[in-house]
Amino acid sequence: MGLGVDLNCDMGESFGSYTMGNDEAILETITSANIACGFHAGDPATMRRTVRMALEKNVGIGVHPGLQDLVGFGRREMAISAEEAFDLIVYQIGALSGFVRAEGGRLQHVKPHGALYNMAAVNRGLSEAIAEAVYKVNPELILFGLAGSELVKSGERIGLKVAHEVFADRTYQADGTLTSRREQNALITDHDVAIKQIVRMVKVGKVYATDGTDVAIKADTICIHGDGKTAVEFARVIPGALEREGIKVRKIR
Amino acid sequence: MGLGVDLNCDMGESFGSYTMGNDEAILETITSANIACGFHAGDPATMRRTVRMALEKNVGIGVHPGLQDLVGFGRREMAISAEEAFDLIVYQIGALSGFVRAEGGRLQHVKPHGALYNMAAVNRGLSEAIAEAVYKVNPELILFGLAGSELVKSGERIGLKVAHEVFADRTYQADGTLTSRREQNALITDHDVAIKQIVRMVKVGKVYATDGTDVAIKADTICIHGDGKTAVEFARVIPGALEREGIKVRKIR
Amino acid sequence: MGLGVDLNCDMGESFGSYTMGNDEAILETITSANIACGFHAGDPATMRRTVRMALEKNVGIGVHPGLQDLVGFGRREMAISAEEAFDLIVYQIGALSGFVRAEGGRLQHVKPHGALYNMAAVNRGLSEAIAEAVYKVNPELILFGLAGSELVKSGERIGLKVAHEVFADRTYQADGTLTSRREQNALITDHDVAIKQIVRMVKVGKVYATDGTDVAIKADTICIHGDGKTAVEFARVIPGALEREGIKVRKIR
Amino acid sequence: MGLGVDLNCDMGESFGSYTMGNDEAILETITSANIACGFHAGDPATMRRTVRMALEKNVGIGVHPGLQDLVGFGRREMAISAEEAFDLIVYQIGALSGFVRAEGGRLQHVKPHGALYNMAAVNRGLSEAIAEAVYKVNPELILFGLAGSELVKSGERIGLKVAHEVFADRTYQADGTLTSRREQNALITDHDVAIKQIVRMVKVGKVYATDGTDVAIKADTICIHGDGKTAVEFARVIPGALEREGIKVRKIR
Repeated sequence: MGLGVDLNCDMGESFGSYTMGNDEAILETITSANIACGFHAGDPATMRRTVRMALEKNVGIGVHPGLQDLVGFGRREMAISAEEAFDLIVYQIGALSGFVRAEGGRLQHVKPHGALYNMAAVNRGLSEAIAEAVYKVNPELILFGLAGSELVKSGERIGLKVAHEVFADRTYQADGTLTSRREQNALITDHDVAIKQIVRMVKVGKVYATDGTDVAIKADTICIHGDGKTAVEFARVIPGALEREGIKVRKIR
Repeated sequence: MGLGVDLNCDMGESFGSYTMGNDEAILETITSANIACGFHAGDPATMRRTVRMALEKNVGIGVHPGLQDLVGFGRREMAISAEEAFDLIVYQIGALSGFVRAEGGRLQHVKPHGALYNMAAVNRGLSEAIAEAVYKVNPELILFGLAGSELVKSGERIGLKVAHEVFADRTYQADGTLTSRREQNALITDHDVAIKQIVRMVKVGKVYATDGTDVAIKADTICIHGDGKTAVEFARVIPGALEREGIKVRKIR
Repeated sequence: MGLGVDLNCDMGESFGSYTMGNDEAILETITSANIACGFHAGDPATMRRTVRMALEKNVGIGVHPGLQDLVGFGRREMAISAEEAFDLIVYQIGALSGFVRAEGGRLQHVKPHGALYNMAAVNRGLSEAIAEAVYKVNPELILFGLAGSELVKSGERIGLKVAHEVFADRTYQADGTLTSRREQNALITDHDVAIKQIVRMVKVGKVYATDGTDVAIKADTICIHGDGKTAVEFARVIPGALEREGIKVRKIR
Repeated sequence: MGLGVDLNCDMGESFGSYTMGNDEAILETITSANIACGFHAGDPATMRRTVRMALEKNVGIGVHPGLQDLVGFGRREMAISAEEAFDLIVYQIGALSGFVRAEGGRLQHVKPHGALYNMAAVNRGLSEAIAEAVYKVNPELILFGLAGSELVKSGERIGLKVAHEVFADRTYQADGTLTSRREQNALITDHDVAIKQIVRMVKVGKVYATDGTDVAIKADTICIHGDGKTAVEFARVIPGALEREGIKVRKIR
């Protein structure tokens, strides 16, 4: 059935009177939406609206659980225990699934947000707690995590379907991790370079690290960001660029 | 199958390092637990523990959604719209159902908390939004509301099973509403008087209002409070007292 | 010293990663800034930045305390007690004054936000608690309130200097209150009409209500809004328009 | 004027309907109260009541600022920047000083709480930001920190009066830090042992670490905990025990 890849984006990050992102436009091009659940962003009204929009556009609906740090947008690491991670994940999957059921849809996946995503990528105990939480609430859910990370490994061990995630606009280190945003060369701003990188990750299963090493990587889903200035524009050109290379943009399952 | 009544109590109201209530002891005597969901009280860890205890003791599990007012414990009325009420209810049912599924149980009912309960008792628009939220997430859930209130009427209209709730330790007005807590005679502190009142409500379907009027009332479930000094003691004597009158304490369904 | 009027605007309403308003541009034209304190909007970093900008532009710094309702932006009325209002005000004046002292400035005024402002305009008990809170923390502060409202009356009774506030872009009722935003004709979108209204309020001390009644009104300070599409533009033309009528825009004291 | 030492305790940690600690009883024996400010514990009403009680009992009033983590009681480390620490401290000093001024008192000191205290003890950048925040809001405030820590060093460098804090009920490591609470031998539960330790710290300036090393330590103020079962009892015996050794319990300045 040919080469294919999923395209995901964080969504539903508005809060009360505060608007963030270009959800409606981005939903036109992606296949999986990661919807915030009120801990690092989002609120009940935003969750309902975002779930409804995603269903209308036939985009896969994912839970995007984060640390309880609204003012820090869930981006500051916190020393939470594995048990606290488990509880955060169960709560937020539940909360979003309320809206999904009220709207007559079904959940597709779970992708942790920000600092929780980063911690789960390297901390085995935390990643196991998260995978167990997903599995216990609904073993049919797909767990999205950094390609090759502890999180996807923990998901696989417990019996979840997982999706290895790669980034179009981030550079990689020789060990397969992302270059820290604190570094100068963390972001790829040239769209052509970004597209070349993801095409190679999908077709060849490799990515050049910043030091030139050629690193093996699995690319089930590509993360694009919806809040930058050129995000909508970039999101629009990706599917065509991929398809010209024979890669179909399609839902993860 | 004889006379029977459900006994419910608010539960899971601890928060972080703060402890409230005597949940474990109270769970021995009640048949329905209303579990807070983190908006007016409760947190993910408390929700998990409380769901687990309720399942172990075979007590019916209910969602106890409240206004987003932790410092006010959800007791201060807020001018929320019907749409905001809908979203609050969906979110909180969802959040608790995450834990119920993770623990392998099932939800039984929904009972709004505090100011939301009081507003829903008299405000038709709000009560319809709440009933619709419950129905859309799961039409099998039972809606608990003040006996004869707008909330139970809205529940019945949309097709939900409802439970008319009465209070053992509160006095009533001639119109069937509770005497406001601001009044001197709002509370019944004499356990014998309280038991006489609930026995009469269950057997005869009537209650004497504070002005002497004999008011018709339906009693499907009795609310007891778990946080007072004599709460545990009172909770313990109720089932025996009711059974001596031929009233079985049993789950709502 | 001729006719003059103060021009105030709400400021510092950004929160974490969420941006709101055009504070820097608006600060060029106003004389008093009402800075949010983290309850309905704002956060510590935003408060520091906003205080610093206001000091640089020599704009009077005001506390803009609101209800603890971030998701509702402090616009939903809550049944708080007078004592709770007192405590909210003391806390928020204190919090902002921390930044003002750290930056070497001084506080000028206090103006309650949103639902708290509206409740204080008509509820004497609440308005007295607010005025007392301001007075006890610092009797030199000026209390801003709706022209002719309970709030300014309570401020005057306790011995505070007060500022009667009028609105350029809102219509009035025959009793001197603002037309509710729920009404069609609540807002004045034509800048010429808005300017005519404020010029007449300042020079003649009168405003035409929506029913044609000519209502007496005191105009010490004019509120402009910073978050609408044409807000910055409107804010820029006001001072010139007023000065052509011989009205100087100047700080309240 | 003889040997003396200050006795401090965390206070005002109740929140809304949740009660914590035995503030009124503890205030009888201590000389400095560290009052929570609503970020990790406490709320405006609790702050007012606690400030009032401390003033009535002539106990020195301190700000006890914490991380914004109510559910975690400020005990979970968070990766905050130095700038974020600065802003947190300014905000919380301000908030408490509002109540202190409303009650006609004056602030004495600042002592960071929980994870913020621990991080500031070892992280120089963070400790400098905290010291600078205190200094900029009010250079007369005394900065309390772990004896010998980065925090007291940063306070001294910027020109603040500091208080080296020791613990009666905690054991020490050879490097002068506290034994982590995760270790078995972290707590001293025998009151006689605890008193012997603090007497020696005050009189000799030394403490035996868990490995037997005799460590130099400065003891300006002793922290006692108010929330344990025997806290009130222990707090009551300390002053007498110290005075029998010729050590007067007195305010830090």
